Amino acid sequence: MTGDQYLLLPGPTPIPERIIRAMGKSLINHRGPEFRELLLEVTEGVKQVYQTNQNLLIYPSSGSGGLEAAVVNFISPGDKVLAISIGAFGDRFATIAEKFGARVEKMNFPWGQAADAQAIKTRLDEDKNGEIKAVLITHNETSTGVFNDIKSIRELTANHPALFIVDAVSSLAALELKMDEWNLDVVVSGSQKAFMIPPGLSFLAFSDRALTVHQHSTNCRFYWDVTQGLKYLEKGQTHFTPPISLYYGLREAVNMMQEEGLEKIVLRHRQYRDMVRSSVKAMGLKLVAADESASTAVTSVYVPESIGANQLRQYLYEHMNIIIAGGQQQMDDVIIRIGHLGYVRNLDLLAVLAALEMGLLKMGYELEMGVGVKKAQEYLLQKLPDNLERR
Amino acid sequence: MTGDQYLLLPGPTPIPERIIRAMGKSLINHRGPEFRELLLEVTEGVKQVYQTNQNLLIYPSSGSGGLEAAVVNFISPGDKVLAISIGAFGDRFATIAEKFGARVEKMNFPWGQAADAQAIKTRLDEDKNGEIKAVLITHNETSTGVFNDIKSIRELTANHPALFIVDAVSSLAALELKMDEWNLDVVVSGSQKAFMIPPGLSFLAFSDRALTVHQHSTNCRFYWDVTQGLKYLEKGQTHFTPPISLYYGLREAVNMMQEEGLEKIVLRHRQYRDMVRSSVKAMGLKLVAADESASTAVTSVYVPESIGANQLRQYLYEHMNIIIAGGQQQMDDVIIRIGHLGYVRNLDLLAVLAALEMGLLKMGYELEMGVGVKKAQEYLLQKLPDNLERR
Repeated sequence: MTGDQYLLLPGPTPIPERIIRAMGKSLINHRGPEFRELLLEVTEGVKQVYQTNQNLLIYPSSGSGGLEAAVVNFISPGDKVLAISIGAFGDRFATIAEKFGARVEKMNFPWGQAADAQAIKTRLDEDKNGEIKAVLITHNETSTGVFNDIKSIRELTANHPALFIVDAVSSLAALELKMDEWNLDVVVSGSQKAFMIPPGLSFLAFSDRALTVHQHSTNCRFYWDVTQGLKYLEKGQTHFTPPISLYYGLREAVNMMQEEGLEKIVLRHRQYRDMVRSSVKAMGLKLVAADESASTAVTSVYVPESIGANQLRQYLYEHMNIIIAGGQQQMDDVIIRIGHLGYVRNLDLLAVLAALEMGLLKMGYELEMGVGVKKAQEYLLQKLPDNLERR
Repeated sequence: MTGDQYLLLPGPTPIPERIIRAMGKSLINHRGPEFRELLLEVTEGVKQVYQTNQNLLIYPSSGSGGLEAAVVNFISPGDKVLAISIGAFGDRFATIAEKFGARVEKMNFPWGQAADAQAIKTRLDEDKNGEIKAVLITHNETSTGVFNDIKSIRELTANHPALFIVDAVSSLAALELKMDEWNLDVVVSGSQKAFMIPPGLSFLAFSDRALTVHQHSTNCRFYWDVTQGLKYLEKGQTHFTPPISLYYGLREAVNMMQEEGLEKIVLRHRQYRDMVRSSVKAMGLKLVAADESASTAVTSVYVPESIGANQLRQYLYEHMNIIIAGGQQQMDDVIIRIGHLGYVRNLDLLAVLAALEMGLLKMGYELEMGVGVKKAQEYLLQKLPDNLERR
């Protein structure tokens, strides 16, 4: 049964057949010329997705590993760090910095809202002596389906010397992100999101300015050490055995992303979001995120208490083979999260919206059957060409 | 061309078709019931390979990540550590401990030799106040093809309270290892070796005694934290997104290993070793390891300077599509290393030995053609049944 599941999580995501086939290729020597070529090709390809000409390393790890790499390489014990959090992943980033000895000042915004750019600017303006060494911020907060306007926040705070460190694990390629143009110092991402490949790789991009900070930083590190990483990359190697199969998948993913074009990919994710939101609204359900900060990767929806978010998920799973995410921590059993990230087909999303309607009805929610689906159809209809060429 | 390579490295190793197919399965929710079942099944399966009933966690990382996990969880800054090294990976383990603040006392043995158990015992006996908190030791030293007699060393040093921490990345299932019976505290291994799956997973097994030490240890950690790992494992989850495809591969690998049986797997590796060694000796080449400490995972062979180890490897690669490893550091261009680890067919090894002969001849080495191959044939012949049933 699992093979036929509708997997609509904010990662892991469905894997295209092309990528599955690519990953099945025989392994090669990771200290040989074929791997060198592969490594340089995917490094270049991922840098294009980041829109950066600076530094990029790929780690065998989950996205959390990438966040740890960002901390241990660019933050020293005792450094003051401003950690902006709008949910569970913002909290996680702050926790990692604390675990590695940073003096963390948390700046929390309510779950479901984006960070207030002006408030961040005000706080950094107060820090006249540049005591704050780094700002940690989440691009797309997966726990709530809200994104922070990184570009504006960075612009507003550009005159503060702190490194600007972004968790873009679930946003890269699903939301616009221009690392160099936006002057971001460190940007973390991962493979199991818009890159359409299985979990197991994280990406750490960092500016030349961040590299200078790294060279004077004093945190403990071996596995994540970017000095080692860059030294080996120069030889076309990694300083540990790389997950070669996932690299094959990544090469294929980068090819697919280049064929489609980054702008189109970002646009496609925006369309997923708009379709899902309009449909869910028509069902009379309340959305967590406001329109202007709604994630293009995942849509969070409040479920009436009388139904129960987790019971609804369970029903969809058991009877219609649909996997969507639940809420985390304070949002547990309060919301459902519909992932629309990576390799998603519009008609799959439409089917899931139809199933959601049916599930709600079965559980006693009052709803005019089809009202949400119709909205989704209307949304898709306007994207279709006006007429078919007659033969 | 790469698809047809003879990949005879001490990892990564060839991947069986069954495992490749298993890894191609669609992804699932890593917080759902199917993954829980998968995680518990592979955890149990890997514990059986370790022959332990204690604790085991699986990380998305290379083997080096597993070594880092062993250090940050069980060694505190300032702890005195005795790091026994017989090669590059012993050195690496010591370096990681140093990077994380341990006071490391190195005990080096010459490359190509096993550690002297008696010398280790003597050093620990001197440490009457139990200042040494941990012993780091490599089971199979991949850089030289020599293994340490972990069982005897552990027996001899059993009355010292230090944690006994073993790097078994390239040895587990290729050499006998009985974690509980031998009283080992921490044992690290990885996926791309005798487990026959691609790189990307490391295994950290630890005793209940080690867990107690962990609870009072003060090193910085987040990603590798076994407290978090165990907490999530209880729920059937991991505290980061797991590399699901590799878990599918691991399940299939564990199935295959159970079908074959651990003892047979270890015996098979011993036979690879004995066949390769007898063949190479017959070619008149000198082996690095003595018979009694020769690795069952990789055989290191001196190559006459007039030929050049790296040139020989290059020749085998270019003209016969064979990938074997070279020497590391001081052994670079001095030795070749023939991997026979994991999913290796005897006849592939025989073919590579034939190619080695041909390569040597082409490069001016004096050799009676076939002399090494014949030895390998003789070795294999005695393993074959005596007569075929006639129909």
